Amino acid sequence: MKTIYFAAASLDGFIADQNDSLEWLFKHGPTDISFIDKFLETVGAIAMGAATYQWLLDNSKEWTYKVPCLIFTHRNFKVMNGADVRFVKGQIPPQHQDLKNLAKGKNIWIMGGGDLAGQFHDHGLLDEMHIQTISVFLNNGKKLFSRKTDTAFKIKDIRQRGDTCVEVIYSI
Amino acid sequence: MKTIYFAAASLDGFIADQNDSLEWLFKHGPTDISFIDKFLETVGAIAMGAATYQWLLDNSKEWTYKVPCLIFTHRNFKVMNGADVRFVKGQIPPQHQDLKNLAKGKNIWIMGGGDLAGQFHDHGLLDEMHIQTISVFLNNGKKLFSRKTDTAFKIKDIRQRGDTCVEVIYSI
Repeated sequence: MKTIYFAAASLDGFIADQNDSLEWLFKHGPTDISFIDKFLETVGAIAMGAATYQWLLDNSKEWTYKVPCLIFTHRNFKVMNGADVRFVKGQIPPQHQDLKNLAKGKNIWIMGGGDLAGQFHDHGLLDEMHIQTISVFLNNGKKLFSRKTDTAFKIKDIRQRGDTCVEVIYSI
Repeated sequence: MKTIYFAAASLDGFIADQNDSLEWLFKHGPTDISFIDKFLETVGAIAMGAATYQWLLDNSKEWTYKVPCLIFTHRNFKVMNGADVRFVKGQIPPQHQDLKNLAKGKNIWIMGGGDLAGQFHDHGLLDEMHIQTISVFLNNGKKLFSRKTDTAFKIKDIRQRGDTCVEVIYSI
């Protein structure tokens, strides 16, 4: 069981442009994204922030995740049809314990954004980062990880995903 | 003969911290940097901006580059002992032609910073980027490439450099 931040970013470390759009990713990212499905098979619970959930509400026709999902937010959101989502706030460590219980031995996917991933890291609760770097510069936007880090992550694996994406798995 | 931007950056695309320091790189980057010497063997001329030259003046005991070097600057600089440097300004394309003549069939290394590399790219004069990504986040600093790009670079090669650095060679 690991807690993993799995996310795609530009060469300058942005996950979305200034308008919260992922258009750049769909335009320039890999066309074969079956590696995401393979990763999802290892996942037993998902955590995301309010902006990520809002993006899914605005851009998805249906909820496709089959595992429980905690949404870290103070806002009131509607629940998408068939979605197993729970809205939570407060401290990260007890929520992480809930995620572990929900994941039943499988991995926890911190879907984003960068500040939520950073909060898990602040508490020493991130085990790995799986970063898919797409070979474009956005120059501005939403940060992959809104923190300075004082210790380098260790490279565990490197995979090329199409001709514009390098995925690196880091141990923390 | 290729024009290559070869540079190390953090996971969020910074080449130096906010104080122009490379301390993070020496601390977290690969210990075996013989790949830089191998790259230098292919290089016939170097281009850099004023901040990069200033950094070398402030931090190097001696000039180690054996090929001609153009410094793009409007400032008046001293010349380090034994350095074959020429201070230039003005348009990029004629300076690129000079670099080609100086390189005598070998590669041109655009050493940085990000804005100078961006100017070569603006003129369609960059052929490759060799980016060594070090597995830390700086969160702020000097940008690897101070541009938005509309076309994705193509991955040509991927090399692991120690346990904290992934080098990717991109064709532009």
